[in-house]
Amino acid sequence: MDTGADTALILEAALTRFCAACLEAVGVPRPDALAASANLVEADLRGVESHGVVRLPIYVQRLAAGAINPRPQIRVVRETATTLVVDGDNGLGQIVGMEAMRLAIEKAKQGLCVFASVRNSNHYGAAAYYAEMAVPHGMIGFSYTIGGINHMVPWGGSEAMLGNNPFAVAIPAGAEGPVVLDMACSVAARGKIIVAAKEGRPIPADWAVGSDGRPTTDAVRALEGFVQPVGGPKGYALTLVIGLLSTMLSGAGFGPEVTHMYDDLERPQNIGHLMGVVPVDLFEDLATYGDRMDKAVRDIRGVRPAPGVERVFLPGERERIALAHRRAHGIPVGLGVLAELDGLGERYGQVLHRA
Amino acid sequence: MDTGADTALILEAALTRFCAACLEAVGVPRPDALAASANLVEADLRGVESHGVVRLPIYVQRLAAGAINPRPQIRVVRETATTLVVDGDNGLGQIVGMEAMRLAIEKAKQGLCVFASVRNSNHYGAAAYYAEMAVPHGMIGFSYTIGGINHMVPWGGSEAMLGNNPFAVAIPAGAEGPVVLDMACSVAARGKIIVAAKEGRPIPADWAVGSDGRPTTDAVRALEGFVQPVGGPKGYALTLVIGLLSTMLSGAGFGPEVTHMYDDLERPQNIGHLMGVVPVDLFEDLATYGDRMDKAVRDIRGVRPAPGVERVFLPGERERIALAHRRAHGIPVGLGVLAELDGLGERYGQVLHRA
Repeated sequence: MDTGADTALILEAALTRFCAACLEAVGVPRPDALAASANLVEADLRGVESHGVVRLPIYVQRLAAGAINPRPQIRVVRETATTLVVDGDNGLGQIVGMEAMRLAIEKAKQGLCVFASVRNSNHYGAAAYYAEMAVPHGMIGFSYTIGGINHMVPWGGSEAMLGNNPFAVAIPAGAEGPVVLDMACSVAARGKIIVAAKEGRPIPADWAVGSDGRPTTDAVRALEGFVQPVGGPKGYALTLVIGLLSTMLSGAGFGPEVTHMYDDLERPQNIGHLMGVVPVDLFEDLATYGDRMDKAVRDIRGVRPAPGVERVFLPGERERIALAHRRAHGIPVGLGVLAELDGLGERYGQVLHRA
Repeated sequence: MDTGADTALILEAALTRFCAACLEAVGVPRPDALAASANLVEADLRGVESHGVVRLPIYVQRLAAGAINPRPQIRVVRETATTLVVDGDNGLGQIVGMEAMRLAIEKAKQGLCVFASVRNSNHYGAAAYYAEMAVPHGMIGFSYTIGGINHMVPWGGSEAMLGNNPFAVAIPAGAEGPVVLDMACSVAARGKIIVAAKEGRPIPADWAVGSDGRPTTDAVRALEGFVQPVGGPKGYALTLVIGLLSTMLSGAGFGPEVTHMYDDLERPQNIGHLMGVVPVDLFEDLATYGDRMDKAVRDIRGVRPAPGVERVFLPGERERIALAHRRAHGIPVGLGVLAELDGLGERYGQVLHRA
């Protein structure tokens, strides 16, 4: 939550308005532009800047190039008692993802566990957003997606065939906030390697392999290669399984079919997601469940901290604290990202107001 | 698949017979004894020794002490259209787990995604066993469990409050074998440390810390301390979420309620599992799906290997190869484990025949 010299404060409303105006400028209808922008800005509010407005420029670029459809006709192409197959018609991943999760939740309200498989979507931002949509309905939410760039190698391989695929699980509690897991499968974000390369610093040996598939501490060589999966073969297996779950049930792109989100502005990406919802009250009395979840959360939070640690946090808790703070005081946006957003604004006649 | 000087070869049938006889000797009915033994021995066949017959002695000890019920009345205590809550009546985890997954699969055959939450169970061995049960039925199988010992600390904490909770996902293919992820949330499974301790071998320095919080290569000291989560906070979040999914939907034990499987032979453990099945044909034509999965599997397997690597394997593939080889040629069982099994045999009038 630092607002150092390398950031400027922007209020949530100003940032959302600006993003929506840029999306509208490339043909996205106003309601969708606002909804997608709120989704992006929520990531920045939660301190997950890697999946927030930093992605707006590439979305706008892809929309302007015709690689994303600004006015998708999102359709349920197959439906059974507990499943949906949703065709996103190459719309923004946020719009398609939110609609798929909304449909899954509506269906689950009949007292069912429901999965929605999605094809013809795009990069959907932070996985947690969709999983958390289930929480106010007393449901556990699952959200899986394939990534928009292949920059991981199968364990033991030396060709990128896998995305750094993320997934999220959101588990409602009682009086406490939900427990929210949101993780991708690499040891470290590629952005950290870029910074190390710029500063001429070495990187830890477990972050990346070079183009020959061998581990390297040379950040420049690492950028020519691939990021390493967390836990070696575990992260490989996890990213593969998330990728398969996200694509094989509806014919979304996988492996060599995945084009590069940043480098290929011609072709639609056919990104796939899988959304799942599990209503808690199908298993357990909600009050009993809520009490037990609250006790579990408080037991974890109350664990004696290690020396030098203030206290233990639950997954998703730091993000909720950041959100409350940034909603009140503004979002510190990096100057590099701001320069890009200002450039976009200049192009589309919009001004991003500082707080 | 080495059969070095520190192991002896045992044939599958001999090992299964021996395990079943020991379980029968402490009151487990013959069909259950055989089924649980086949489940354990399959882990050894697959090369997952940490979850195989190395666990027989503690199961027998707990059964003999009355801490596991040899003749459980497994009951469905709640059922809705897509969910089951199963009470395992404190039976062997293998017997309860297999029954819960069988019930979930039967229900899913009506054309539904189904989840079964399980309470009053025990340590169920290898998670993959249950997930893989779904595969012959054209279903994706999910299997989550809470571990039987709290030996992980919440990230930033210094008290063990979490198990090293494992989960498995099994995804059917077409002509190819299924993709099977089975992982716990530590850098290495505690079972591997148990095996190393029994064999008097050192462990890698990143597997565990001793009770003083310092990394150790001494397996015995590691067993007195905590295993390390894979990827730091990622592994913490993952093991917490798996633990909550496995326990909160049916009132199984969590956190401080989890007793020590090895040290507390008095109290039942009330271990929880969550089983899920997702029939593929609810989403996609099976032939299309099979072709796409086979292509994905072959694309991954065909990736150019890194220097010094023979070829890339799919998750679960090495285990299938090991199983075929060991089924034909015998299972190399560590001499430390064998000595324990022989001791058990002596006690219960059984002989474990070498190949």
